[in-house]
Amino acid sequence: MRVALDAMGGDSAPDAPIRAALAALSDAPESLTVLLVGDPVRLQEPVRSSGYPPERLRIVPARQSIGMDEPPVAAVRRKPENSITVGLRLQREGKADAFVSAGSTGAVLAASLFVLGRLPGVDRPAVGALFPTALRPVLVLDVGANIDCRPAHLHQFAHLGSIYARDLRGLETPRVGLLNVGEEAEKGDDLVAATYELLRGDPGLSFIGNVEGHRIIEGMCDVLVCDGFVGNVLLKFYESMAGFIVGLLHRREGGLESGEVERMLDYTEYGGAPLLGVDGVVVLCHGSSPPRAIRNALRVAVDSVRAGMVSDLGRDLEELSRRTGGGTT
Amino acid sequence: MRVALDAMGGDSAPDAPIRAALAALSDAPESLTVLLVGDPVRLQEPVRSSGYPPERLRIVPARQSIGMDEPPVAAVRRKPENSITVGLRLQREGKADAFVSAGSTGAVLAASLFVLGRLPGVDRPAVGALFPTALRPVLVLDVGANIDCRPAHLHQFAHLGSIYARDLRGLETPRVGLLNVGEEAEKGDDLVAATYELLRGDPGLSFIGNVEGHRIIEGMCDVLVCDGFVGNVLLKFYESMAGFIVGLLHRREGGLESGEVERMLDYTEYGGAPLLGVDGVVVLCHGSSPPRAIRNALRVAVDSVRAGMVSDLGRDLEELSRRTGGGTT
Repeated sequence: MRVALDAMGGDSAPDAPIRAALAALSDAPESLTVLLVGDPVRLQEPVRSSGYPPERLRIVPARQSIGMDEPPVAAVRRKPENSITVGLRLQREGKADAFVSAGSTGAVLAASLFVLGRLPGVDRPAVGALFPTALRPVLVLDVGANIDCRPAHLHQFAHLGSIYARDLRGLETPRVGLLNVGEEAEKGDDLVAATYELLRGDPGLSFIGNVEGHRIIEGMCDVLVCDGFVGNVLLKFYESMAGFIVGLLHRREGGLESGEVERMLDYTEYGGAPLLGVDGVVVLCHGSSPPRAIRNALRVAVDSVRAGMVSDLGRDLEELSRRTGGGTT
Repeated sequence: MRVALDAMGGDSAPDAPIRAALAALSDAPESLTVLLVGDPVRLQEPVRSSGYPPERLRIVPARQSIGMDEPPVAAVRRKPENSITVGLRLQREGKADAFVSAGSTGAVLAASLFVLGRLPGVDRPAVGALFPTALRPVLVLDVGANIDCRPAHLHQFAHLGSIYARDLRGLETPRVGLLNVGEEAEKGDDLVAATYELLRGDPGLSFIGNVEGHRIIEGMCDVLVCDGFVGNVLLKFYESMAGFIVGLLHRREGGLESGEVERMLDYTEYGGAPLLGVDGVVVLCHGSSPPRAIRNALRVAVDSVRAGMVSDLGRDLEELSRRTGGGTT
């Protein structure tokens, strides 16, 4: 088993990839060979001092590398000897079985399409991400490769995710959910409504129906299908929030005053969602609102009236309409 | 100041609305009148025992109410005397200044459009929600009223949100962000790319540019514009995650072992996002991945090869393509 690892990819390259390679080699004695793809000058010394023989850890030279901020497609074209392209080429030539990179996602996508190509039956490859949940992780896809998807694309994502969950996580019939704004079949935009029908009518999937945002964390499905825009926003938001909370927990040595985090995250504090754009003051609360949240909504209503918000909105939007020529519907 | 409150809306109605009304009245002595809209039989006793005179707390009878699961538009039409419609009508007739409801969001939207109508210059009213952040809350809109938006709609949302932030939160020039999958102007789908140009070219807005999912929690803007699909998913996800974490914190009396939450949220545990659908094994990591995350990605790569994932994917997707007539692009 030979895995090519992009030694030049990521903020802490080549240090982090090298340390990861050494850890992986000690995890999997004998059977694994790691091919470090990158600048031999920077890789030679750490590889030699690791003590691993070439059958276990080897350098594959790549003269170029792609920075995180370079435009992906142009960079892949302009630098044919970058570590990503070189690493993927090993796989195409039968010299490696897999490729791992912490480099530019866009560049890895572009180079993968260029060097490896798509599988038959796949219109758009997708990136999946495992979200930790209360139960077991859910594979969300796509999380960034594809925006402006069509129903057939999401249908393919459901299959890609199901096979992955079966092969990698040993789930016989992975439950597939469709991310949506409501549970009913007819909810959502045209994309998800049409996708719902495709998934429901497919005997090759174990489709559990629509999954709303607040049920992701429950872990009710194994694969969650969405277009790459919402998936990307959700993934980044999840990670940032996780990091944010873990950061808060670390602020206090050896423990935490739970009230602090709780106050921070207490959306009932702001309870009351304004409906903006109608000719009046309307404030919405959750169905599950405790009295405190409704009281806060009453306060929002009072403040809105006091501020003369409706006439301010009316003036501003009318002005905008004049300026833009108005009427979009 | 007279605020109509839907006494029949929400899971704990009429108890929660009544308690909220009493709390609001004690917050704002003299100046506030709450009109409880709903079933007089159920409201009479608590109102009387509250001791508030009719100038402060009064019942406005509504013979009907709308359940959380009823189809909103149909329910509003079929029940003209429901508590939402009756409450909104008070505002149209000049008998109330604002309306608050914890009832069905869809029904409140439908009834608001029907009874109050849109402000001039507004094509689509939007629902805003305040997200707690590390700094100060950000008003995200739309969070559910509008799917399939056009750029001009998002442009209007930016104005609705700005005026709200100015009037209600006292911000002279609220900073407006556009939710997107990257920071650069040309990122995202057609909708956000075109919206970006509208917001950037508008001297009436303080536009700070695109905001990615992981920067929401930083509180870098006051108003965050997005279409109702992604906004709704994000809001529900945020709330559920907040609830989930607060629930974890409460599991332990008087304190918390921070390691528990940390492990739960540690996405590096699953480090390694598979790129699915290309003809090979490719695993992506964050640019900021620590060695541990890259090591886990290497494990995912090894497992993928061992499981024969690529040929399984190829077989399955080819079969799907045959079944569906293939070729969507």
